[in-house]
Amino acid sequence: MSMLVIGSLAFDDIETDHGKVADAPGGSALYFALAASLYAPVGILGALGDDFPAEELAFLRDRGIDIDHLEITPGGKTFRWGGCYETDMNKRTTTKLEQNVFQYFSPRLDDDLARSQYVFLGNIDPDLQLDVLDQLEGPKFIGADTIECYIADKPNRIRDVLARIDIMFLNDDEARLITGQHSIISAARDILRLGPRYAVVKKGEHGSILAMEDGLFVVPAYPIHPVIDPTGAGDSFAGAAFGYLVKESDCSPSILKRAVVHGGIAASFTVEDFGLTRLKQITAGDIEERLEFFRAVTLF
Amino acid sequence: MSMLVIGSLAFDDIETDHGKVADAPGGSALYFALAASLYAPVGILGALGDDFPAEELAFLRDRGIDIDHLEITPGGKTFRWGGCYETDMNKRTTTKLEQNVFQYFSPRLDDDLARSQYVFLGNIDPDLQLDVLDQLEGPKFIGADTIECYIADKPNRIRDVLARIDIMFLNDDEARLITGQHSIISAARDILRLGPRYAVVKKGEHGSILAMEDGLFVVPAYPIHPVIDPTGAGDSFAGAAFGYLVKESDCSPSILKRAVVHGGIAASFTVEDFGLTRLKQITAGDIEERLEFFRAVTLF
Repeated sequence: MSMLVIGSLAFDDIETDHGKVADAPGGSALYFALAASLYAPVGILGALGDDFPAEELAFLRDRGIDIDHLEITPGGKTFRWGGCYETDMNKRTTTKLEQNVFQYFSPRLDDDLARSQYVFLGNIDPDLQLDVLDQLEGPKFIGADTIECYIADKPNRIRDVLARIDIMFLNDDEARLITGQHSIISAARDILRLGPRYAVVKKGEHGSILAMEDGLFVVPAYPIHPVIDPTGAGDSFAGAAFGYLVKESDCSPSILKRAVVHGGIAASFTVEDFGLTRLKQITAGDIEERLEFFRAVTLF
Repeated sequence: MSMLVIGSLAFDDIETDHGKVADAPGGSALYFALAASLYAPVGILGALGDDFPAEELAFLRDRGIDIDHLEITPGGKTFRWGGCYETDMNKRTTTKLEQNVFQYFSPRLDDDLARSQYVFLGNIDPDLQLDVLDQLEGPKFIGADTIECYIADKPNRIRDVLARIDIMFLNDDEARLITGQHSIISAARDILRLGPRYAVVKKGEHGSILAMEDGLFVVPAYPIHPVIDPTGAGDSFAGAAFGYLVKESDCSPSILKRAVVHGGIAASFTVEDFGLTRLKQITAGDIEERLEFFRAVTLF
């Protein structure tokens, strides 16, 4: 397997100003994999109960996503998450959190998975992320994501992860929390000092910043209005960025810049409807079309 | 006079996390004029007491700024403003507001000023902005700015202004307040429906959006850290943008895009120190140098 994502699969209840959905398939690994699969083959390692719809799994397989390594617990229940977003969608309240089979998830990589070249550690417990890192054999490029509760509860383990990866994806609040820096640029640069070659700080509707050893790259968000549901935007951002790197087979700064642009484009589709709806509909051609428009609205 | 700004001149007390200053010369017209003067000649119409330092006026004159139309009231006191910024510099508390001579300011344009081609209506009362518009004879391009208190107190007069100008400069909160739209993109487009050909929505550290009849232009902010004092960033943004238009003698969409980039660069200097300090130091060459860097960090 060339590209692997380890993360959550879930049923999501989501409420925004634009409506709500219940029991929508989601989770960091699914958003990542659907976006990445537009570029290159990707495998998922994660945990499911046997309540996850067969047609969802069939859809993933049809998209060329390797789901053979999913751990499906007979009689188990899939992770459930619920969130309610305010009008300012940077603010949300968690309305449901049922770990179910996810609380026993301990990723085991067989020989095939252990030799994955591009590996993305979705927002799982940093102890699990470190456990995966220990199992990898000669990876080429490793990325990770995290969430605020892990930064607050296990700051030293997050630092251990940062010391061993190539790229970290964070949102602005997470970057501030890890570094104690209010300025996003200062925070992104401080992240680099903790280990990775690259740090991407995502600012939602305000775009993102890529910090590199030899400089910065700043990019606005693709202009979308209205945003219907921001769930999974960050995971699909990372998925498209990783997919682009795998497709180009190159992790140099100039390719990373374009990868971040692709990430923003993928996220712009994700937020246009609830859950995975848009990510399931779009093709590589849709990404290209939006990329052309993005060049037009940013070139001066 | 080819380019004219009508607005406030003031003594500012400013406090941020990085320190404070008292009695610093400022006001929308000064920030605008200093930035604009890096590109083309500019005149100021505004009101002063006789307490304004002669060396400040001499400095403006040395920079080629026409200050002959300033109304200086013998024995009068100059407008005084004080502001205290939070760590999140989008939030500030007004700590002082003494209108002084500014409350009697009623701009009178002589024949020379009335024939100005490029006119910027700084954030003065919309009734005064309309009064200026009535006095102009065949202007080529008119821009305006405003502040929240006028939008709240005189929404219909703001709409009267919008119906008669070419470009409106707003920050994100102001754009939301005028249009009732939460989305910045929707708000910017709604502003266009009220009259102007162009609307610039400034998002501080997150860059800006230029809405045009035939499309959008989105641009990130020039990466500055730390921001020492955001006072006057918006006015110097407008000043540089206007200056660039005058220099190019062109108000087409492609020139407007570059004007907005120049605006962001000028603002990036302004925020690097308190008050007018940096704007007084920089040259057109400094702008060009930062423009080159900006191209490098945004090109993909």
